[in-house]
Amino acid sequence: MRPYIIINAAISADGKLSTRERCQVPISGSEDFARVDRMRADCDAILVGIGTVLADDPSLTVKSPALREERKNRKADENPVRIVLDSDAQTPTTADILRKGEGKRIIAVSEKADPERMEALGEYAEVITSGEDTVDLCSFVQELGNRKIKTLMVEGGGTVIWSFLSQGLFDELHVYLGSMIIGGKTAPTLADGEGFVDQSLFPRLTLDHVGQMDDGVLIRWKRRE
Amino acid sequence: MRPYIIINAAISADGKLSTRERCQVPISGSEDFARVDRMRADCDAILVGIGTVLADDPSLTVKSPALREERKNRKADENPVRIVLDSDAQTPTTADILRKGEGKRIIAVSEKADPERMEALGEYAEVITSGEDTVDLCSFVQELGNRKIKTLMVEGGGTVIWSFLSQGLFDELHVYLGSMIIGGKTAPTLADGEGFVDQSLFPRLTLDHVGQMDDGVLIRWKRRE
Repeated sequence: MRPYIIINAAISADGKLSTRERCQVPISGSEDFARVDRMRADCDAILVGIGTVLADDPSLTVKSPALREERKNRKADENPVRIVLDSDAQTPTTADILRKGEGKRIIAVSEKADPERMEALGEYAEVITSGEDTVDLCSFVQELGNRKIKTLMVEGGGTVIWSFLSQGLFDELHVYLGSMIIGGKTAPTLADGEGFVDQSLFPRLTLDHVGQMDDGVLIRWKRRE
Repeated sequence: MRPYIIINAAISADGKLSTRERCQVPISGSEDFARVDRMRADCDAILVGIGTVLADDPSLTVKSPALREERKNRKADENPVRIVLDSDAQTPTTADILRKGEGKRIIAVSEKADPERMEALGEYAEVITSGEDTVDLCSFVQELGNRKIKTLMVEGGGTVIWSFLSQGLFDELHVYLGSMIIGGKTAPTLADGEGFVDQSLFPRLTLDHVGQMDDGVLIRWKRRE
C-alpha cells in the first residue's frame, strides 16, 4: 500500500514557486515555517525533485531541536527519510540533503541512470530504480510503502508536484499563498508539467481548511474521490 | 486622477486562468458568478486585453436584469463602459463586446495601430491612442479618469493583469481559487508577462478578506503602499 501523501508548497499570490530565474524567495513567515517544520517532524519521509536540489540545495532537516527530540523519543531518526526524485542520478554527492543531519536518504532513479553515478550516490543513500526513462512514480511509492513509510510529504518543485497531482498520487494538498506578486510567464508554478486540456481529467479537490496565516493565506485541500 | 482599480480573476488551485490551449473552463460557481456580476454592475468600466477577446469573445455585460435595472435607476447605462486593451487594433468588429448589450465601448490602441482598423472600430467604440508600440497604461488610465470613470474593474487575461500589477496600477486584487488542478508549464497564470527577479520590486499586498465561496476560496488583497 502506498503512503498517505501530503503535497506542501508556498506560492506567491499569483501562483509562483519562485522567480523566472528559479531564485528561491521568502514567501511565507515564521508561523508557516513552524507549521512546515511540524509537518516534516510528523511524517516518515519527505520528497523533492532533482530540480529543487540543484536550484536550492535544501537539507530538509527538522529545524526545531524540540521536534527532533520528540522524534528520537519515539525511536525514530532525528529527520524523516529524505528522498530525491532523480531519474538521471544527477544529485551531487556534496548536496546538503545527503550531508546534513542524521537519517536515511533514498535516491529514486530510472533504468537509464548512469551506473557510476548510482554507485557514487550509493555511499550516501539507498538508490531505488524504477521506470525506463523516468521514475515510475506509482511503483516507486509502492516501494516506499513496502519500506514501512506510511506518510510522505512532497515539497516540490512544480514538475514533481504536477506528477503526483496528475497521477492522483496524493491525499492532501497544503498551499500557503504569500502576500506578493512575482509574475512571469516562465516562472515555476505550483503544478507545471504538461497540464490538462480536457476538464473531465482535472484532479478535483475538496476544501478542508482556509484561513489567514502570517500575512498570507493557508489553504488545505483534500483529493476528491 | 486615475480610477480606483480592482483586478478580478478566477484561477485554479494551482494558479492557472485556463488550460495551455487557452480554453476557458468553469472555475467558480454560482455564488462567485453573482459576486462578479454585482462588481460589474457597481463599477464605471470593465477592461480586458485583446487576448481575452480573441480567446473567449466575452460580452462583459451585466447578466442580472435586476442589477441592470438598478443601474438605469441611477441614470447609468445598463452596462459599464467596456474597454479592450488592444495595442494593434485587432478587436474584430463582430466581437460580442462591441455588439451585445447597450453602453459605451473604448478601444485602447497604440500609435502603431493600423488607421483603417481604427476607423472600422470607431463605428462601435471610442478609440483612444497612447504609447508608441503598446498602450501607455499609465496615461491611458489617466484618460479614463478625465472621462469621469471613477472605478475600473480589470478582468484579465494574465498579461494585462501583470501590466497593471507590475506598474502599481491597482487598489484591490480579488482572486477566486477553484477546487481543481489544471497544471501546465505554459498555461496562462494570474500574472504572466516578464515577471520580477529582484524581490525588492515585488508588488506587496495586504490581506483584506479570505473565506470559502462555492467550493473554492475567495481572497481579497489590497495594494500595500
